Amino acid sequence: MEMLRCVAELRLVDHHCHGVLEDDLGRADFESLLTEADTPAPGTTLFDSLSGLAVRRWCAPVLGLPPHAPADDYLARRAELGAPEVNRRFLRAAGLAALCVDTGFATGRLLSPERMAEESGAHAYEIVRLEQVAEEVAARHPSPREFAGAVRARLAERAADAVGVKSIAAYRAGLALPPIRPSDAEVTSAVERWLPTIGDDQPRLADMTLHAFLAWCGVDLGLPIQFHVGYGDADVNLHHCDPLLLTPWLRATAPHGTPVMLLHNYPYHRNAAYLAQVFPHVYADAGLATHNAAHRAPTVIAETLELIPFGKFLYSSDGYALPELHHLGALWFRRALDTFLRSGLDTGEWTHDDAEHIARLAGAENARRVYRLDERGPAAAGE
Amino acid sequence: MEMLRCVAELRLVDHHCHGVLEDDLGRADFESLLTEADTPAPGTTLFDSLSGLAVRRWCAPVLGLPPHAPADDYLARRAELGAPEVNRRFLRAAGLAALCVDTGFATGRLLSPERMAEESGAHAYEIVRLEQVAEEVAARHPSPREFAGAVRARLAERAADAVGVKSIAAYRAGLALPPIRPSDAEVTSAVERWLPTIGDDQPRLADMTLHAFLAWCGVDLGLPIQFHVGYGDADVNLHHCDPLLLTPWLRATAPHGTPVMLLHNYPYHRNAAYLAQVFPHVYADAGLATHNAAHRAPTVIAETLELIPFGKFLYSSDGYALPELHHLGALWFRRALDTFLRSGLDTGEWTHDDAEHIARLAGAENARRVYRLDERGPAAAGE
Amino acid sequence: MEMLRCVAELRLVDHHCHGVLEDDLGRADFESLLTEADTPAPGTTLFDSLSGLAVRRWCAPVLGLPPHAPADDYLARRAELGAPEVNRRFLRAAGLAALCVDTGFATGRLLSPERMAEESGAHAYEIVRLEQVAEEVAARHPSPREFAGAVRARLAERAADAVGVKSIAAYRAGLALPPIRPSDAEVTSAVERWLPTIGDDQPRLADMTLHAFLAWCGVDLGLPIQFHVGYGDADVNLHHCDPLLLTPWLRATAPHGTPVMLLHNYPYHRNAAYLAQVFPHVYADAGLATHNAAHRAPTVIAETLELIPFGKFLYSSDGYALPELHHLGALWFRRALDTFLRSGLDTGEWTHDDAEHIARLAGAENARRVYRLDERGPAAAGE
Repeated sequence: MEMLRCVAELRLVDHHCHGVLEDDLGRADFESLLTEADTPAPGTTLFDSLSGLAVRRWCAPVLGLPPHAPADDYLARRAELGAPEVNRRFLRAAGLAALCVDTGFATGRLLSPERMAEESGAHAYEIVRLEQVAEEVAARHPSPREFAGAVRARLAERAADAVGVKSIAAYRAGLALPPIRPSDAEVTSAVERWLPTIGDDQPRLADMTLHAFLAWCGVDLGLPIQFHVGYGDADVNLHHCDPLLLTPWLRATAPHGTPVMLLHNYPYHRNAAYLAQVFPHVYADAGLATHNAAHRAPTVIAETLELIPFGKFLYSSDGYALPELHHLGALWFRRALDTFLRSGLDTGEWTHDDAEHIARLAGAENARRVYRLDERGPAAAGE
Repeated sequence: MEMLRCVAELRLVDHHCHGVLEDDLGRADFESLLTEADTPAPGTTLFDSLSGLAVRRWCAPVLGLPPHAPADDYLARRAELGAPEVNRRFLRAAGLAALCVDTGFATGRLLSPERMAEESGAHAYEIVRLEQVAEEVAARHPSPREFAGAVRARLAERAADAVGVKSIAAYRAGLALPPIRPSDAEVTSAVERWLPTIGDDQPRLADMTLHAFLAWCGVDLGLPIQFHVGYGDADVNLHHCDPLLLTPWLRATAPHGTPVMLLHNYPYHRNAAYLAQVFPHVYADAGLATHNAAHRAPTVIAETLELIPFGKFLYSSDGYALPELHHLGALWFRRALDTFLRSGLDTGEWTHDDAEHIARLAGAENARRVYRLDERGPAAAGE
Repeated sequence: MEMLRCVAELRLVDHHCHGVLEDDLGRADFESLLTEADTPAPGTTLFDSLSGLAVRRWCAPVLGLPPHAPADDYLARRAELGAPEVNRRFLRAAGLAALCVDTGFATGRLLSPERMAEESGAHAYEIVRLEQVAEEVAARHPSPREFAGAVRARLAERAADAVGVKSIAAYRAGLALPPIRPSDAEVTSAVERWLPTIGDDQPRLADMTLHAFLAWCGVDLGLPIQFHVGYGDADVNLHHCDPLLLTPWLRATAPHGTPVMLLHNYPYHRNAAYLAQVFPHVYADAGLATHNAAHRAPTVIAETLELIPFGKFLYSSDGYALPELHHLGALWFRRALDTFLRSGLDTGEWTHDDAEHIARLAGAENARRVYRLDERGPAAAGE
């Protein structure tokens, strides 16, 4: 199966991913990072999944093994090469022009944007996680009245070097953000409830008023705001993560024009595509679901492309910890785009020039335009 | 790709559409009417969508241009021919036997059913919008006590010449209609709250009690009641437009037997199909989504056909303002039906006679039977 | 179209079905049992559906008729052969190794597990319906304080010979089970409200506290708990049957490890697959939707297989009353699995050994492992 050249040779902008690990991983660790499951059921293995089959089929050759190598052979070869070499091979194989790295989770253990640039040979940019900034401020035990100002100030510092911010309201409180900007008094009173619960623990923000406050901080900054939407691990209440719950907030923020980036979206990807059609400031991708659905990613992405204008659809891997995921995200995104574009070429729905134009928009140009990548220096540039 | 003759030659009944505009349109106007987006995002065009590609591919030849003509050439040619000629060409190209025209929105600017009949060469029937009748009555500033009676009387007049009525509760209050008929006292008290807010403005009904009252007026009339369901523009709260929210109301109205027509339904089309399977008085279509999903309409319609009995599925374009949408609705409905029917013929699931029977039911006969089109004169007949 | 041998020859474990009727059936009766509709709309027949077409195509030859025999010929031949012979032919044709029979509904009219074993030539096991046990206890008019103990005792008796239990909370109260085990006082007070309403009628349990109590009884027993999820007849409030509503309860029960089996799931099958991925104790099937979607079952099952690990997906027919449904369930499950596995073999995503392994897991081995079928004698064994 020949892939369209305009898709095969396109260097992608991965507008949402995380760093990779440099630790060597045993089988249990690897399986726990492969999908959103923490652990397989008794008597089963997570290699028995579309994700696992894709690792054996498409990742094994990158490590010099035959396609479909057994899982244990794969992990043995991975250990033999060592994490740094494995990371480099997969991040190079992904064929990226740039990546936007969310630095707000498990930061110490994962490669920094600088190191991700180095290993991938691509430009790397930073995405600042709003809740992480707020939790950093909360850990200093400010007075509740000072909290909002301190968050705004710290966020301005952090965002100076970033191309976007990210909200994980979906994980902590759901996406039914109130459509009105919370008042300072409401923020203060939410902080008054929260701070005393922290003690010496690592603070964990999970309060709708505070998530809404942070999202409005993002609107004010004017940088694109990424929202985790839909599919995630067992901590998510997926029915509170339908992007349609964000509708009133999107209606309220539309006049500001700050781009809102709906990440992942599965299984609500058609809903996200609808929002991206009707709200000029809304964009969407099929992140995380791309490498999890693997062989089925072309269907998921085709469903997303029913309503979304091609100027609103982006590529992300949501790769985290395992560089295989950055590679498989790129591989399945390309195959999905190729399948979609060829299906229309076959029946004469569009021209080859149209196909090339759509591929460029979705794979790279939309991200460059929305994040203004060409107007700012990357956090780091790979060679 | 040869289309099945029973599909290609079938003259369709479009059981829900609007009139078209006779104004000439600039690019911004055209784009704003092409999808449910009011306007493209900065740096993008709505021609970069499956809808836009379909206009260039399938509409350009109807205007005498080569397939895939650039958007600007297309709009220049459109202006050159003039709206009346453009309307006539597309409405004829749609291959319709009849159309049911919702006259309740932007009436003054759009062609009347009579003119739609003339331009399309098909019979035209009227669908009366319930809320528009109620707003017309409200504009006369009746006493709240008189309101219900005045609405019933006006509706009886308007419906005498119509084949069905339509509710836009989905747009204004969502589809969670209470399963109990509102009492006169409840209606009066809702009107008491509403009327004082109107002043000299055009009244806008948006009150669940009143939407429910109107829906029951429809049940009493015995004419099929169309409900907008699902996909619409940025005014819709799509998560309040899942047809499943109508379940208690459907259960309450089932004994009356008045047909309930679920329009559009995307992305809840499988839910609508379920309702149409289990409630004898419920029917569904894929309206609006058909020309928006374009190249993907065959998938959307195949999903709808999983559960819905073939005697319950209808064709509508929901074409509005642009005659391209009436044409593309018909074109993609035919292609979807053809793809579906051929997929079963290819593997011997059904016979050619079965395929022809299903095509006739979905494309025309279900609408004729449910709206009793053969028992009444059309509002207007094209030549 | 040649089917993969590993699929065609696989003897399936149907982990959720009902008994069949031994009555002869007229056309109205047959249609009322064919789908989830009680009755066709005026002027239509339920044979005009994917289900109906599948009966004519795939069941007619089992009764010695040509494929695509007209519905009336089919029913005449069925009557001529008589229900016992018809039952035997279809249950044999299904190619089963074992079936788990829900004995909690319409018990008197349907074949027992013993008779199902005899007619199918497969091993039969019993699934005890929790609500039926509770209603049996309630019919004895116990004192409210004794109720919980009496249910536990009766359930222990009934479950001694069973391989699993089943909850129909979805049908009666929805799936939003509270995540906390109800206290004895709460159960007693719910029973105090319920018992006085019963009188001499057959008791009908429909109280969230009591459904939750029963589900926890299931957790304590340690046998797999089946939940009706999603698609059902007009009694269901489908929007209360999204498996995601069960998320808090799944999180609460995960530490216990008792397997939770999500049945049917359509149109929420992707949501169910997500839950089965992230919670080690959760499993899912496509039950009821398989024979209803018929020609479209391969798509529905492929959507389910996007996220679900292959060790978590099972086969069930949910066949009820008509043995055609047990046969068509098996037939379309095999075709769906074959289509899915061949699509990956065609593009080299997996090996033939992988395909065989996946087929065995989904078709039989997952059920054997989770229900521990090999550790216990069947309720009955066919020859």
